[in-house]
Amino acid sequence: MNYLGIDLGGTNIKGGVVNEAGEIVREASRPTRVERGPEAIADEIGILIKELEQGETFAGVGLGCPGTVDDESGEVVCAFNLNLIHYDLRAALKARTGYEIRLGNDANVAALAEAVVGAGKGAHSAVILTLGTGLGCGVVIEGKMLTGYTGAASELGHMVIAEDGAPCTCGRKGCFEAYASATAPIRMTTEAMARYPESEMHAIAKENGVVDGRTAFMAKERGDAAGTEVVKTYIKYLASGVTNVVNIFFPEVIAFSGGVANQGEALLAPLREEVRRQEFGGAYVKKHAKLVNCTLGYKAGVIGAALLATQ
Amino acid sequence: MNYLGIDLGGTNIKGGVVNEAGEIVREASRPTRVERGPEAIADEIGILIKELEQGETFAGVGLGCPGTVDDESGEVVCAFNLNLIHYDLRAALKARTGYEIRLGNDANVAALAEAVVGAGKGAHSAVILTLGTGLGCGVVIEGKMLTGYTGAASELGHMVIAEDGAPCTCGRKGCFEAYASATAPIRMTTEAMARYPESEMHAIAKENGVVDGRTAFMAKERGDAAGTEVVKTYIKYLASGVTNVVNIFFPEVIAFSGGVANQGEALLAPLREEVRRQEFGGAYVKKHAKLVNCTLGYKAGVIGAALLATQ
Repeated sequence: MNYLGIDLGGTNIKGGVVNEAGEIVREASRPTRVERGPEAIADEIGILIKELEQGETFAGVGLGCPGTVDDESGEVVCAFNLNLIHYDLRAALKARTGYEIRLGNDANVAALAEAVVGAGKGAHSAVILTLGTGLGCGVVIEGKMLTGYTGAASELGHMVIAEDGAPCTCGRKGCFEAYASATAPIRMTTEAMARYPESEMHAIAKENGVVDGRTAFMAKERGDAAGTEVVKTYIKYLASGVTNVVNIFFPEVIAFSGGVANQGEALLAPLREEVRRQEFGGAYVKKHAKLVNCTLGYKAGVIGAALLATQ
Repeated sequence: MNYLGIDLGGTNIKGGVVNEAGEIVREASRPTRVERGPEAIADEIGILIKELEQGETFAGVGLGCPGTVDDESGEVVCAFNLNLIHYDLRAALKARTGYEIRLGNDANVAALAEAVVGAGKGAHSAVILTLGTGLGCGVVIEGKMLTGYTGAASELGHMVIAEDGAPCTCGRKGCFEAYASATAPIRMTTEAMARYPESEMHAIAKENGVVDGRTAFMAKERGDAAGTEVVKTYIKYLASGVTNVVNIFFPEVIAFSGGVANQGEALLAPLREEVRRQEFGGAYVKKHAKLVNCTLGYKAGVIGAALLATQ
């Protein structure tokens, strides 16, 4: 039997019918249009579910949602970019479709997919880090998502790595997210450009019409000293947080996705070196976490939501 | 049937016969005398096992050991204070006693005991932090110890919270251990005493013949400004690491043991307040981690080792 996975985002609601091998057999998408409010969003999800059913009855339906969710109560606790606060999405969808959905944080369920059928397939445990606007995280141990007592997601991005450091959206200072999300190299690049008016980064930003997470990496490739320094600083902080993740979970796989991860080995090779140097007992332990890129792309959200429904 | 738990320390080897309710029914201890080498230590453990058997056959034997152990291979990977490096303790004890022991890190198995029959009894999940010379940690989720892919312990103490901060024994800078172990308030107190020759802390240190983790707390009670500042700084860093633990694991219980934990509510009350203020989604999430003291004392090591054998 097939499962249905739904990835509820700020712009689109994606749905995918997923078979028992974790493959999407058909998919569809509808606009979220947050401004219409919670009930209209639930209507839209209900329509998407009916649209994808095509006479089939799903073995289960799972939904990934940004923010904090409570799979025990069925409530979206707080998803600010969707304007959902203490909204009982399970009840809303039960009334509309008859299905009792399982609820997960979007980064968590994407991590579940990567861990089970993607970059971490067959591994004992995997931590997935999405280096996007924020730093999305998911921890999967022996096939099971770590969600904790509160049902909230594993917020590794909100682990302080630099006491009294850069301010984070969560209110703390010096969070891993503030130093390792895709937003961080943009901040570091902008600061370095102000300090070094001769840097190649100015030309690169002009060529691309924007300062983004790639600017410093491209400058480094062209031999620019300031760009090289930005990349070095970014990797230093990323390595600090990733080494924390190693020391805390000792996972078999740590997989990266999101804009910065597109740098591939230019990012991963120096990161591996630094993490190996810093990890606890690294000189004695025979097994080490493998640092790799994610493999499922945008499909992870939908597949993971469906996998959640199988648990 | 009963299980045998062994707590292998640098000074003594403690053994306890533990019943199915997690209670010690009889116990014994022998000196470790590390200088005699690994084989003699194994002999000593073998003698202790025989001594505690008293005609009984144990359902299982578990052993907690400092440092890094590999329960898959049966090897003590590195326990520097016992001079055990890549030592196959399981084989050594199998040859001497016939039992196939289960191996755990000592802080981990103590945490298992606290989580299952102590401070975290009945809880979904518990993180135990031992604020001793170092910062020992254990994470137990739904009754299962978190040991990771490498089999090594969950080294939360070696999570950097202050990039480029105080040096840690592990080689990194700014680890949680360097700011929150019992060693940290001693360092902070000594530094503050040098800065404030008028502080009450000088008199207190003289009265007790030593500067220890209690000095600043006692000075604070006497209204001393410098002592109050040290306590505040210590709690600031402790709260930072504990909030990280909340954001990472969202456990039901975080329990403290070790010297500094003896401060009880003088430590826990301000810590709770600070963690609640900083935790992710704290204003929306209805469930919060309970911050309490451990309850089993020295018995946790032996009971936890026995519990490991039941898993």
